[in-house]
Amino acid sequence: MVIQQTSSSLVDILRQRRQKLASLIDFPAILWSGSSNPRNFQANVFPFRASSHFLYFAGLPLPNAAIRLEAGKLELFIDDPKPSSALWHGEMPKREEIAQMIGADGAKPMAELESSLADAATIAVQDAATWTQQSQLFNRWVLPQSSPQGIDLELAKAIVSLRLTHDEGALTELRKAAAVSIAAHKAGMAATPKAKREAEVRGAMEGVIIAHNMTTAYNSIVTVHGEVLHNEQYHHPLQPGDLLLADVGAETEMGWAADITRTWPVSGKFSSTQRDIYDVVLAAHDACIAKIRPGVEYGEIHLLAATVIADGLANLGILQGKAEDLVEINAHALFFPHGIGHLLGLDVHDMEDLGDLAGYEAGRTRSDRFGFSYLRLNRPLRPGMLVTIEPGFYQVPAMLNDAKQSSKYQNIVNWERLSQFADVRGIRIEDDVLVTDAGSEVLTAALPNDAATIENLVMGNW
Amino acid sequence: MVIQQTSSSLVDILRQRRQKLASLIDFPAILWSGSSNPRNFQANVFPFRASSHFLYFAGLPLPNAAIRLEAGKLELFIDDPKPSSALWHGEMPKREEIAQMIGADGAKPMAELESSLADAATIAVQDAATWTQQSQLFNRWVLPQSSPQGIDLELAKAIVSLRLTHDEGALTELRKAAAVSIAAHKAGMAATPKAKREAEVRGAMEGVIIAHNMTTAYNSIVTVHGEVLHNEQYHHPLQPGDLLLADVGAETEMGWAADITRTWPVSGKFSSTQRDIYDVVLAAHDACIAKIRPGVEYGEIHLLAATVIADGLANLGILQGKAEDLVEINAHALFFPHGIGHLLGLDVHDMEDLGDLAGYEAGRTRSDRFGFSYLRLNRPLRPGMLVTIEPGFYQVPAMLNDAKQSSKYQNIVNWERLSQFADVRGIRIEDDVLVTDAGSEVLTAALPNDAATIENLVMGNW
Repeated sequence: MVIQQTSSSLVDILRQRRQKLASLIDFPAILWSGSSNPRNFQANVFPFRASSHFLYFAGLPLPNAAIRLEAGKLELFIDDPKPSSALWHGEMPKREEIAQMIGADGAKPMAELESSLADAATIAVQDAATWTQQSQLFNRWVLPQSSPQGIDLELAKAIVSLRLTHDEGALTELRKAAAVSIAAHKAGMAATPKAKREAEVRGAMEGVIIAHNMTTAYNSIVTVHGEVLHNEQYHHPLQPGDLLLADVGAETEMGWAADITRTWPVSGKFSSTQRDIYDVVLAAHDACIAKIRPGVEYGEIHLLAATVIADGLANLGILQGKAEDLVEINAHALFFPHGIGHLLGLDVHDMEDLGDLAGYEAGRTRSDRFGFSYLRLNRPLRPGMLVTIEPGFYQVPAMLNDAKQSSKYQNIVNWERLSQFADVRGIRIEDDVLVTDAGSEVLTAALPNDAATIENLVMGNW
Repeated sequence: MVIQQTSSSLVDILRQRRQKLASLIDFPAILWSGSSNPRNFQANVFPFRASSHFLYFAGLPLPNAAIRLEAGKLELFIDDPKPSSALWHGEMPKREEIAQMIGADGAKPMAELESSLADAATIAVQDAATWTQQSQLFNRWVLPQSSPQGIDLELAKAIVSLRLTHDEGALTELRKAAAVSIAAHKAGMAATPKAKREAEVRGAMEGVIIAHNMTTAYNSIVTVHGEVLHNEQYHHPLQPGDLLLADVGAETEMGWAADITRTWPVSGKFSSTQRDIYDVVLAAHDACIAKIRPGVEYGEIHLLAATVIADGLANLGILQGKAEDLVEINAHALFFPHGIGHLLGLDVHDMEDLGDLAGYEAGRTRSDRFGFSYLRLNRPLRPGMLVTIEPGFYQVPAMLNDAKQSSKYQNIVNWERLSQFADVRGIRIEDDVLVTDAGSEVLTAALPNDAATIENLVMGNW
């Protein structure tokens, strides 16, 4: 539990958030923080991660707590630590002190929660101990894997509409997460020349995040097999001709995330084929960010990335045809099969615990079109939204060797030309972009992404 | 999932373990590996940790798998990865390949497990998704927080009798965990002079563990408030007069743990009062290790630590009386309130998921005596057992300021003399000791623990 001095500004921020919520719903909401998951025995737990919805309104990662929100008021439910816990966990703040830190209007022991549930809505937390408790207390199923119904759905929609755009309190935290993630990536680049395998680079990067008293916002990807999109293996040796893809982001003590990907040459020098593809991906990245402004459809940004990538690959002779036509038949998706990005906030895929409620504008659903089905965000952009922009190029053997795919694109892909790019298995460039009134601000801009500067960072020339 | 090349020796080791199990039980056993716990949304999970009992017999950390053990045979139940998973997770080995790696006698999809359960025993895993499945399939409660009953209890006892002493396969892994933990502690000491707060030292230590493609076996303690026994806060600044207590251990990819504590001066130099107490704790540590040999009661080792600490504190004028008399009235426990150590193996408190079944000899239960109730191991030592030895000295405000305690020890503690040791909040020295036929072997001996060498390591004179 992180309970350090809190500022009066936190109290103000939290108060504003619950007043906004009160303007959207006319019933009480109860939000639980959750509890730790045991790892291999009860006392050996995974690090506690409070529910993001709880964090948004309560501000502090308090385990085994709940808040009741009604008409702009917050009641905190939490038990005082047992006297014996001082020996093992030290003196912890008492209920009343915590209540003051977060500007609560009342504070009660957990046992009194049961009598405060009438007509209230809630959102399922992720850990089973807590959602079981939620289900029992409400006498209905409250399950993290089910879509909310009734007033729970109304509450979820109201929270989505708040969390979709970030207030100043959120942005302060998001900038901290970005800054530490940038430092981690620089440390990873600097550690590469002496590293013998992926794990060593990961150690250098996560060591920086831990040193800042943060945690990773998701399981890091640090791999020479970037073509495996969610590769969580770190044992491969680093070879001079490899590209290393690192998708690593920090999460602040209060739970706010960053999400950055860089791809760099192990040797400190891109080969000419690697450099060619890198510049195609970077061109897509830059074009997307240039297009971000309020009112623009995020789906259009995705389409732009697809078009720039198709165009770049056509210019390199890998694809044959005009960019627009290539995108029309989804040829880009052979090499760029995922979405251009997603919402970012308290969760790395913000509010994904609510399915597509946050990511998709009301009435829209996922496309089943190849290359579009993985798009996690499909809304017009609004000031205060934070999104990732993460185009990539991958040679996924399972896709390229798939008989159906390769026959479909038999005359579209110049397979012989493609074979000259065998040293490019996976490249992704990902930044965190805030939509502003004027257009956009890249929160992760302090980390260079052009090929020449990346090379210098790896070589230590900085 | 870590599935690298496995050696034929792993197959041999696993085969021996299940043959030993077959000699102890005459019914089948089904052991599940478990599944990942979601963190803040379903796709963002805590790192997978397979059940230790599964790991002991199956060798590999396979998620969502089960094994059926009967008469020395192993049947593996696991589903082949879906074709679509190749894009996200890469090409994974298929069921038959995995079966071969672990020397399975058969391999089936998970759906066939249901028809193989008759008359079988099992052990609850920690994650709710899996223990819910276990309970449903067996049509009885299989709960991690409940003591096993009937044949489940017989199975648990049989597994305890195997896991209590380590075979060569286990020792190879345990030595790897020890070696990496030693490197982590050295890195922590070296990072201290430049570190501004605890988190930076933690980052240096865990960075080393991650770089070796291992994980921490438990949540690290890296603190200037060592008097809080399980302190998991890392935000305190480091002051020149502070002692830093680091209880950090690595866990290998196959799940085997180390558990080391060192305490060092932030400035690189112990004060004379810190040094005095440090040497008392070290004397207790050394005396305990010298006493370890087959047949010795671990409770006697604990009593020896208590006596050496009482004697040392009496010599320093902090306690008044003879060591034996002081221990008789539990005066040592005012400063050394926890047990001298515990079993170590696949779990950092080995097999603690089974309560005291592993730690306590049949017929023995926890004492309610002050200072003895936290003793986690109470058995005669046997060759092949691995235990920690971790005496400590703590000034816990909640204990020393407790009116009942301080009045009870009013004339035993020289409170004025004690006040001169205010710069000693917490010291612990912990090593991992293997019981051998000849006596003992300290697996963590390569990490110095004498005050002078510790100072040199912090100062970089090595």
